[in-house]
Amino acid sequence: MGNPGGCRTSRNSTALPDPREEAGKASAAISVTKGSNSGLPACKVITCRAAIAWTANAPLSIEEVEVDPPKPGEVRIKIVSSGLCGTDKHILEGKDKVPLPSILGHEGTGIVESIGEGVTTVQPGDKVLIFLLPECGECRYCLHPKGNMCVKENILSPTGLMLDGTSRFTCRGRKIYHLYGTSTFTEYTVVHEIAVGKIDAAAPLDKVCIMSCAVPTGFGVVFNTARVTPGSTCVIFGLGGIGSAVVMGCKASGASRIIGVDIIEDKFPWARALGVTDCLNPQNLKRPVQEVVVEMTGGGADFAFEAVGLTDTMVAAFESCHVSYGVCVIIGVAPSAAKLSFDPLMLLPGRTLKGATLGEYKTRSCIPKLVTDYMQRKFNTDSLITHQFPFEKINKAFELFRSEHCCLRCSIKLFICIRSVFLMWELSAINFPLRMAFIASHRFRKGCQCRQKLIYNQRRNATPKSQCKILNTTFTAEESHTRTRRCSDHVYTILKRKTTA
Amino acid sequence: MGNPGGCRTSRNSTALPDPREEAGKASAAISVTKGSNSGLPACKVITCRAAIAWTANAPLSIEEVEVDPPKPGEVRIKIVSSGLCGTDKHILEGKDKVPLPSILGHEGTGIVESIGEGVTTVQPGDKVLIFLLPECGECRYCLHPKGNMCVKENILSPTGLMLDGTSRFTCRGRKIYHLYGTSTFTEYTVVHEIAVGKIDAAAPLDKVCIMSCAVPTGFGVVFNTARVTPGSTCVIFGLGGIGSAVVMGCKASGASRIIGVDIIEDKFPWARALGVTDCLNPQNLKRPVQEVVVEMTGGGADFAFEAVGLTDTMVAAFESCHVSYGVCVIIGVAPSAAKLSFDPLMLLPGRTLKGATLGEYKTRSCIPKLVTDYMQRKFNTDSLITHQFPFEKINKAFELFRSEHCCLRCSIKLFICIRSVFLMWELSAINFPLRMAFIASHRFRKGCQCRQKLIYNQRRNATPKSQCKILNTTFTAEESHTRTRRCSDHVYTILKRKTTA
Repeated sequence: MGNPGGCRTSRNSTALPDPREEAGKASAAISVTKGSNSGLPACKVITCRAAIAWTANAPLSIEEVEVDPPKPGEVRIKIVSSGLCGTDKHILEGKDKVPLPSILGHEGTGIVESIGEGVTTVQPGDKVLIFLLPECGECRYCLHPKGNMCVKENILSPTGLMLDGTSRFTCRGRKIYHLYGTSTFTEYTVVHEIAVGKIDAAAPLDKVCIMSCAVPTGFGVVFNTARVTPGSTCVIFGLGGIGSAVVMGCKASGASRIIGVDIIEDKFPWARALGVTDCLNPQNLKRPVQEVVVEMTGGGADFAFEAVGLTDTMVAAFESCHVSYGVCVIIGVAPSAAKLSFDPLMLLPGRTLKGATLGEYKTRSCIPKLVTDYMQRKFNTDSLITHQFPFEKINKAFELFRSEHCCLRCSIKLFICIRSVFLMWELSAINFPLRMAFIASHRFRKGCQCRQKLIYNQRRNATPKSQCKILNTTFTAEESHTRTRRCSDHVYTILKRKTTA
Repeated sequence: MGNPGGCRTSRNSTALPDPREEAGKASAAISVTKGSNSGLPACKVITCRAAIAWTANAPLSIEEVEVDPPKPGEVRIKIVSSGLCGTDKHILEGKDKVPLPSILGHEGTGIVESIGEGVTTVQPGDKVLIFLLPECGECRYCLHPKGNMCVKENILSPTGLMLDGTSRFTCRGRKIYHLYGTSTFTEYTVVHEIAVGKIDAAAPLDKVCIMSCAVPTGFGVVFNTARVTPGSTCVIFGLGGIGSAVVMGCKASGASRIIGVDIIEDKFPWARALGVTDCLNPQNLKRPVQEVVVEMTGGGADFAFEAVGLTDTMVAAFESCHVSYGVCVIIGVAPSAAKLSFDPLMLLPGRTLKGATLGEYKTRSCIPKLVTDYMQRKFNTDSLITHQFPFEKINKAFELFRSEHCCLRCSIKLFICIRSVFLMWELSAINFPLRMAFIASHRFRKGCQCRQKLIYNQRRNATPKSQCKILNTTFTAEESHTRTRRCSDHVYTILKRKTTA
């Protein structure tokens, strides 16, 4: 059913508004189509901005890249929002080896811009999640009831190339590698059809971008891998984005005691709000944390989760779970060539050590349903996004992620959408003049979904002051200024639209 | 309900025949009761033979020991048959640390001789299995649906003492330690009531002794721990007694392909007869065995079992199972202070690494039911016992176990019972004159259970010659002589009984 031209773009140009128009004149130029000044013609190379990791241990470099049209079975996507995951940080620190130079980022949402020949499950204009694990539905992994490591992408030894062995990115004449077939730190990316999942048209992309990795990873290890039981005791090592999603899953599963372990105590009030009953900082303990957990739980936790990515914490998590029936799930990605080493007698009495990627979810089949559940308010993961940065501040986001401040999940916004104003308001991250401008735009507010307000009000009432404090401490003066400018631009754009509508 | 005397012996002395009479005059003296020449008075010390491990890396020494009467909650048992497990071998080789001098052996059957105060679940005369894992039914481990590592015995850091902190064994004035609260390489032992399971009165003790450890361990890891599914692929490292029980379990579970790995190729025909479809000797392969298994199975086995007890084979087993949904169960006991070391990325795609002791069976609740199933012919594990030795040849049994000959399970017979003749006949392990003597004892044969004959005939027809060959090769001239003499004595005893009956 493919068209002879090889790919198909949005039939209605208004379905994909020109990013330049969307972001307003004051924002940086975002996307230009090579060889054209009017919209996005079919099957042309797109020139846009991307954050390139030329080498490890160096900041990302935002540069102009050429993004090739999608080949058969591929989809070109305009990225709207991308999460920043610990794996990206590890790669940038040289701990996880991937082919470089590369466009990192694997947790993203966007809108399909064009599709290659034979693509049938998504259309231009569809909102999609991008997955680092594809689901071809045909290989042994996909056909097995428990497998989700589709053979079409080897995340353990990534090639950095598409299935045809080539790349769709070029920068300054050099080939730029993909990351796990995703690469979301770019304004446009090309992925295989089997690695995207169509989601609800109403889904707020800047919030559901974490459904691409953090949320299914955290929920899945609880519901699919460990299968946490009501009344059980759980311990979570690492209270970052995924660790917090694990806490939410454990709470939802009816765990009676949830012990959170982290060396950054600023995270503790936040963690308690999510469901953690006991917080431990190993650096403040006189004995190894696993001994303390075993004592606290009368022999060890029923379930232990490691969401840090260090072998020491993996061993500690394993030793924290009950000797006879404890289940320890490793979520964190250890540095390349790291060795997990322990006494095999630890296994013998009945312990279980498991791993999981994306929480054992079969990506295309299952994860879009999580978005539907989210839209139906079955759960709310908005609080997992503590920070949002404009694309040009991506290195700031990495700095924050590396720092010892509280940072559950940074979201990199490639294109600012309407929800961002709400989010920033909720997080008290916008300054006084902007708040006033925002309140003044009465018409704009009235047009917003009531659900947003409800969530907002609930959050305001439920959020302890300490959380706000934590969130506020992470913003520098420069950040605040950037946010103000960005939001001002955005409100301006919206108001302009409302006027012309 | 305890008696004031502190313990109760068999009310009818004929219920527990004097071992000296049982074994005939020609056999070595087996048991004498201290201070008495006529039967076993209540609550007296028993003097009998036991195989003592004075130090590691030395043969066991068969000596006279004093066995104290059972204290409250304890049971004194006349051991009838004891299996020889790899763990005993490891202890004797100094690889597993336990307090010494000790009476080893933990896989045994016997008949209750006397009970201590408060014992209600077994009576003198009951046939019982002895378990290295007790089941108090009250601790957190016992109450948990999956736990079986009852707190009343710490097999990971064994004290070598009973729960009151003392020992029931003395030899030459020295205290002798227990092993895991069992110690079956003795004619009499004392164990806690919570560590014995009453079994069918008709159960053949020399055959069901392996139900105490090998069979539940092998079956349990298949049915309880791994939960092998029909049509799955399995790989078993180590085709000894437990490995063979695992093979039987996999076969019973409907596994479509069962790969057996061992460096002793003599075991292969035997393994094939049990259900192994492919045999691999890692020493004959040009590549690591795990790579071969992964290639053979198109990505890795669904289930891998390690029944060797070496960290190298544990890693190989783990790497042999499927990257996304493979389950690897560690059964073998690694030497003390050994470290299992692997890349944690091996876990991340979804692999599971588990351990289990006694196949996760809750010992008293579940394992006697296995004996009932065996008696009801739901399965037949007789073939797992390839050799039987008289007690005084226990060091020979260890030698055979250490040698490279085929040895699935050695059974040490403390008291020869009627079934041994059948067993040895089935295994073609008795020489021609004895066979003739056996056949001649027509009256004796007629009195035997038809079931025995049926099994015997089935085995004869089903056993390929290669198996018999394997079994025969393991017997030296001396062994054959010992067996002949022992069996002759036995037949003599039986005939004498028949005459006097």
